[in-house]
Amino acid sequence: MTEEFPTIQGAVCPIPLPHQEKIMLGHGSGGKMSHNLIQKYFLPALTNPILSVGDDSAVVQLTSNTDIARLALTTDSHVVWPLFFPGGDIGRLAICGTVNDLAMVGAIPLYLTVGFILEEGLEIGILERILQSMQEAAHESGIIIVAGDTKVVQHGKADGLYINTSGVGQINPNIHVSGANAQPGDVVILSGSVGDHGIAVLQARGELGFDSEITSDIAPLNQLTQAMLSVCPDIHVLRDPTRGGLATSLNEIAHQSKVGIIVKESDIPVRPAVAVACEMLGFDPLYIANEGKLIAIVPEDAQGIILSTMQKMKYGESSRVIGRVVADYPGKVLLITGIGSTRILDALSGELLPRIC
Amino acid sequence: MTEEFPTIQGAVCPIPLPHQEKIMLGHGSGGKMSHNLIQKYFLPALTNPILSVGDDSAVVQLTSNTDIARLALTTDSHVVWPLFFPGGDIGRLAICGTVNDLAMVGAIPLYLTVGFILEEGLEIGILERILQSMQEAAHESGIIIVAGDTKVVQHGKADGLYINTSGVGQINPNIHVSGANAQPGDVVILSGSVGDHGIAVLQARGELGFDSEITSDIAPLNQLTQAMLSVCPDIHVLRDPTRGGLATSLNEIAHQSKVGIIVKESDIPVRPAVAVACEMLGFDPLYIANEGKLIAIVPEDAQGIILSTMQKMKYGESSRVIGRVVADYPGKVLLITGIGSTRILDALSGELLPRIC
Repeated sequence: MTEEFPTIQGAVCPIPLPHQEKIMLGHGSGGKMSHNLIQKYFLPALTNPILSVGDDSAVVQLTSNTDIARLALTTDSHVVWPLFFPGGDIGRLAICGTVNDLAMVGAIPLYLTVGFILEEGLEIGILERILQSMQEAAHESGIIIVAGDTKVVQHGKADGLYINTSGVGQINPNIHVSGANAQPGDVVILSGSVGDHGIAVLQARGELGFDSEITSDIAPLNQLTQAMLSVCPDIHVLRDPTRGGLATSLNEIAHQSKVGIIVKESDIPVRPAVAVACEMLGFDPLYIANEGKLIAIVPEDAQGIILSTMQKMKYGESSRVIGRVVADYPGKVLLITGIGSTRILDALSGELLPRIC
Repeated sequence: MTEEFPTIQGAVCPIPLPHQEKIMLGHGSGGKMSHNLIQKYFLPALTNPILSVGDDSAVVQLTSNTDIARLALTTDSHVVWPLFFPGGDIGRLAICGTVNDLAMVGAIPLYLTVGFILEEGLEIGILERILQSMQEAAHESGIIIVAGDTKVVQHGKADGLYINTSGVGQINPNIHVSGANAQPGDVVILSGSVGDHGIAVLQARGELGFDSEITSDIAPLNQLTQAMLSVCPDIHVLRDPTRGGLATSLNEIAHQSKVGIIVKESDIPVRPAVAVACEMLGFDPLYIANEGKLIAIVPEDAQGIILSTMQKMKYGESSRVIGRVVADYPGKVLLITGIGSTRILDALSGELLPRIC
């Protein structure tokens, strides 16, 4: 967080006064401010080796009498606004978000818990529609909702409703997927176009200023990841580029794996309507949230079988190679732009679109 | 929910007009309105055999190569206000609440996930104190926080912060604890005084009108339950009487087990200061939330060893028998009052103390 300097008669006073740091919207962006909040406050307070790994789900070992099972555990609170938007709603988002976090460590999603915070005055008809949508998404992904909790807060102390979903998945013994496993020489695959979810939510907020056919890409990706892992158990990294977008997720991987990643802008698909909206609003689609896309980093010799497998699946039809992992520039992401120049592609700094998920 | 009748010129019009049902604070009470909301909307939409059981945690089976492990899964969102109160804070509450839900199905708590919804403008110093408190409670209970999530909403769209905790525990093969397992002849044990948590929170709200020494009883109960199960694996029911209080929890058990439960008012401990506060405010302490107490329903022949084990433990010193399970009055709880009469002790109806946990 930047230091605050009080202004005296129009001039900037260079003496920092004591002040209380406060939570800002940017702390929820999924970008650098979120990262700093977690590094500075959450990890030191709650630290342990499992929490510190930094993947989409925690991986734990469960010792039963004669065998050891590896479980993936994850949690996500969903505060998207508005509750309904083209292509989805907070209910579908809550299920798919958590299913995908499990899938991104190579787990088979098994069980889900749901926690609701309801605002007094919420129409029950709205709740019913959202519950219906959750059940449909659970069916599609094959996860089972096993436990729930409901709290109610006074009118004005929430915004309709918030949903936490926490999930448990099981990881087969030969699977070792982590953001820390990218290796020089690996190929970077992206499963489809970027920016759809964020722009669909902006459209629902009436912030686009024009009509478009943009819909959110929300989808459960576990069947896609399971198909990929069945043809190549040695996939190194899987990650869904949600808050902070593709650019931020690639930076996280480069940082975790201590490698460089080079991607080519012209290979990253962006739907024309999304590109137009971004152009008008001054956004870069590489920083816009997605909810049904994944990045896979795979050994070069497996790229053919993995790509052809992905392209046969509903949510992977448009999969393509967008870049490579290199030993140079550890921790950095480089973008080869449309005009052929190369620049550093940084993680999201500050807040772009609050309450996008 | 009661029908609404529009008023015309001061008279009550007897024709119910179509209206939208809305969420009311009572839907979060943990009593009958919560029960009705869950039965009418949540269960039909999300139904499956595991969700429908109705215990404090879901019990699922995990098949590994050669063995089957049983896991307990649970979730709770915490919206208590104020964030700090005598004897605890929202952080300790969030950890202990979930640890206790796991303990109440006989599980050993293993892993916890935490999901924060932070309000823009929250002082980070407050967050730090709460994180510290969470870590202390996690250490005390032995559970490991393995995954987290942080969302930020605009100022005025939350109330400081809300915390979801979801937990995973492991259940030993010989343990079968459930609210559905109470049997006629069983003995009902209570681990200590009731009403402390709810009255401590009211005091922090400045609603008592007098100073008192009342502190919340928030505590992790898993070491207590593990000691109890080690001397008697055949404990039938464990439940922590939180929202809705002792009366509501006993009703849930009577309903799940299709038995009657008779308890004696004079055997239920209430601290003098809590009794005074309840008297002044018109509350019945049997409906006030607790956060560090448990009900155990055990075979009669095991009551001696279980009671003596409980009384040696920090959070079970004041344990005592408060009643019996009977075959008559299935689904009902009967209270033998201080003056010797007997009356039905119903579940909480409507809302008593909003945002108590």
